[in-house]
Amino acid sequence: MHAITIPEPGGPEALVWAEVPDPEVGEGEVLVDVAASAVNRADVLQRQGFYDPPPGTSPYPGLECAGRVSAVGPGVSGWAVGDKVCALLGGGGYAEKVAVPSGQLLPVPDGMDIRTAAGLPEVTCTVWSNVFMVAHLRPGETLLVHGGSSGIGTMAIQLAKSVGARVAVTAGTAQKLQRCAELGADILINYREQDFVEELRTATDGAGADVILDNMGAKYLERNVKALAVNGRLAVIGMQGGTKGELNLGALLAKRGAVTATSLRARPPTEKAAIVAAVREHVWPLLSDGRVRPVIDSTVPMREAARAHRTLDESTHVGKILLTTAG
Amino acid sequence: MHAITIPEPGGPEALVWAEVPDPEVGEGEVLVDVAASAVNRADVLQRQGFYDPPPGTSPYPGLECAGRVSAVGPGVSGWAVGDKVCALLGGGGYAEKVAVPSGQLLPVPDGMDIRTAAGLPEVTCTVWSNVFMVAHLRPGETLLVHGGSSGIGTMAIQLAKSVGARVAVTAGTAQKLQRCAELGADILINYREQDFVEELRTATDGAGADVILDNMGAKYLERNVKALAVNGRLAVIGMQGGTKGELNLGALLAKRGAVTATSLRARPPTEKAAIVAAVREHVWPLLSDGRVRPVIDSTVPMREAARAHRTLDESTHVGKILLTTAG
Repeated sequence: MHAITIPEPGGPEALVWAEVPDPEVGEGEVLVDVAASAVNRADVLQRQGFYDPPPGTSPYPGLECAGRVSAVGPGVSGWAVGDKVCALLGGGGYAEKVAVPSGQLLPVPDGMDIRTAAGLPEVTCTVWSNVFMVAHLRPGETLLVHGGSSGIGTMAIQLAKSVGARVAVTAGTAQKLQRCAELGADILINYREQDFVEELRTATDGAGADVILDNMGAKYLERNVKALAVNGRLAVIGMQGGTKGELNLGALLAKRGAVTATSLRARPPTEKAAIVAAVREHVWPLLSDGRVRPVIDSTVPMREAARAHRTLDESTHVGKILLTTAG
Repeated sequence: MHAITIPEPGGPEALVWAEVPDPEVGEGEVLVDVAASAVNRADVLQRQGFYDPPPGTSPYPGLECAGRVSAVGPGVSGWAVGDKVCALLGGGGYAEKVAVPSGQLLPVPDGMDIRTAAGLPEVTCTVWSNVFMVAHLRPGETLLVHGGSSGIGTMAIQLAKSVGARVAVTAGTAQKLQRCAELGADILINYREQDFVEELRTATDGAGADVILDNMGAKYLERNVKALAVNGRLAVIGMQGGTKGELNLGALLAKRGAVTATSLRARPPTEKAAIVAAVREHVWPLLSDGRVRPVIDSTVPMREAARAHRTLDESTHVGKILLTTAG
């Protein structure tokens, strides 16, 4: 098969489409003929040499894919050759074939194109596990989503609205904020021109955010704690603004607040399977009946993954960038 | 009645026993004739002028008491004049009478002296709400308790052991650690002579603590994150080592960890009542049958509260210091 390899870490040009051995399907695994993968920030870190795949996972980038089951390993039930699936991966999505633990498979939602489904696993599992399983967002509460127009952001807006929460977003342009508004966001904050702590305070009569989904890490830590409501929960899922920041425990204690930080990739298969099962139960019905839709920015041939990475580096996209195979 | 007043903030001598007006019992409240109160760190901060009582609460120090119900306000059911009770207070325990929202009352456990029960509400509610309601300590998990010989610490050890958890403690002397061991602590760490991160790592085969109950705040923040196990939860309940510390979100994310900070005092009555109800359900049976016992360091007449505060300032005590009225 072919896959995107990284002979030397570096810029987008480090991504090289090359012939590699086919993966083998192991106990409890399913082999998927990949129709599409999708781009995540973690892929950029892996390309740059900062995020090696966890032991036992594929060396190629790609944390999600969609396609058809082409082989079923021993000990797998519930999946058959030919099934249209998408999957949460520890790596290896940027390839024509990938072996996946069966607990990380999801069916392509009713009526959805297979390739579009490649953009679902990371965003649905990240948002559901953080905003709902960890931070327990409830109806009537306010969720602040940083990077509201990202793949994660566009899904977080829709899922939070679907449970009856109020949604605030930050983004860097009026156009991106407009897209967030179309998805249901109630409070729009341009982080280049406005102070999100002040804007949120004004919009919530001083209450702040019950849950914050953050991709900036250290850079926003102090302001995120200020923006939290009493009993508020800050869920950090990315550190685009650095890893080490000052935490004012006095301010956190005054709010009885919580700070959590998680990633999907390093979780053991049992935890991934539990998240995937919860997503299938709670999110899949919303996708099947069209109440929630994946937001796709663009579709690029997988062999030209470098081009997709340039778009992510420039941050001009809204939603997910798909990488399609010829298959 | 008499109460401990603080005419001017300062050292222990700032605590002055004086005649003051009796409290009035309001809607949903019960009046308690106080037999004893107990000393908490927060009382020292209030004495020093750093921790004003929340609006609407008594100006006198004292976050807990025990005694007999002497009057029942309108809208209260389940309590009658003469009942032996202890109570979680927003303030006012250092007095001969105090008015308490009825949701913050607990019966004196079967067979326990009324005065001894004055040392129960803060430690049981703090430990239960943090270790169990927030951090969800489970059987077989490891709890690290900083200050294992404090009132909070001695209760945390016993409650964690009662659910089948493993308990590590830090304390500053061999004698204090010995007392912790007698209460069931499995891993004893002298923080003056040992590095708790290293000791805990060795004792847990590298796994670390699933839950940490911390009273040091900023000073221990970095080391506490290092000491956390994967999926670990750090519950900060005090900031004796300062409020602002560096949080390494990368290290926290690698562990999928959580940092929470709470206090009981500032919570609204509904949240206090929910905690008190949970404590009555889960902790009170353990106290009534003697499986868990309050650890009392000493008993001091309330009018000599300054003496009790000196003991706390010197940190030579193990367990709670009670303050008794003549009543």
